[in-house]
Amino acid sequence: MQELERYIRTIKDFPKPGIGFKDITTLLKEPQAFAQAVDLMAAHFREKQIQKAVGIESRGFIFGAPLALQLGAGFVLARKPKKLPAAVLREEYALEYGTDAIEMHVDAIAKGERVIVIDDLLATGGTASAAGRLVEKLGGQLLGFAFLIELDFLHGRQKLAGHDILSLIRVQEEIA
Amino acid sequence: MQELERYIRTIKDFPKPGIGFKDITTLLKEPQAFAQAVDLMAAHFREKQIQKAVGIESRGFIFGAPLALQLGAGFVLARKPKKLPAAVLREEYALEYGTDAIEMHVDAIAKGERVIVIDDLLATGGTASAAGRLVEKLGGQLLGFAFLIELDFLHGRQKLAGHDILSLIRVQEEIA
Repeated sequence: MQELERYIRTIKDFPKPGIGFKDITTLLKEPQAFAQAVDLMAAHFREKQIQKAVGIESRGFIFGAPLALQLGAGFVLARKPKKLPAAVLREEYALEYGTDAIEMHVDAIAKGERVIVIDDLLATGGTASAAGRLVEKLGGQLLGFAFLIELDFLHGRQKLAGHDILSLIRVQEEIA
Repeated sequence: MQELERYIRTIKDFPKPGIGFKDITTLLKEPQAFAQAVDLMAAHFREKQIQKAVGIESRGFIFGAPLALQLGAGFVLARKPKKLPAAVLREEYALEYGTDAIEMHVDAIAKGERVIVIDDLLATGGTASAAGRLVEKLGGQLLGFAFLIELDFLHGRQKLAGHDILSLIRVQEEIA
């Protein structure tokens, strides 16, 4: 899978100095590379009878939506606060300074449903972990996480311990 | 196609009093309904040899990404200012009070490429029209627009005049 890595562009000092931002737009605009990424995710979860795929706003929608369709699952949004219009459950998570939160509709997942969570990037794992907790609070069975890229050096995987984690591209070291 | 409409939930007074918000999450979570919507969009544009599908942040990603894959096209992001990490072109559009803007990467579309623009909802047409202008400024051939829902009473279609416009659900009157 690691050949997908060559489609990712690293932008230095974005969004702030010292950060090497992983730009996925250079992968998305190549039809074969984007298709391969989604196909690999679908292959990994195909036998798991997934009923709901949760995409984390907003780049998680890009992989979560086609993955849901390929798996024959429903697609569910995990969004920043105040974006979803109906009754929500909210889960907070820690940032370097302060906290942030994500929300899901309370009717997004039925009790016992088999669920995966998708985002483009696993960094510190705060958002993904919060989304996973929301799934479980709503009564879903959390069967795993899928990411295009995992930044190993931020150890986000530890926050998701005990779950199946698929990352198509693993970045070992902070920026080149 | 109009049977898709029954999957849309109208939330009164969101995000502010007097607005009847069209909630698409109730469609997305039903696998057959979501699949049907994307299939209908793909069928409409299949013979047009589309090379790039542009999704407008953020709900446009939900339909644009799987549509790009079904058409064998690359997927391109049109985002709010300051979100895209590399060099961008920006296009402003008028709001009721003031202006807003969207951006695309300057390398997102190659000269002469056949392009469509996707969003979940056509309201006043400001954002979609701006995205279309960006496509043309980047040298793309703008072959049409796809929306899940069109609010006819806001006349957004007029701002996109001269282009092929596909809307799967047309809402004639402001809220019931």
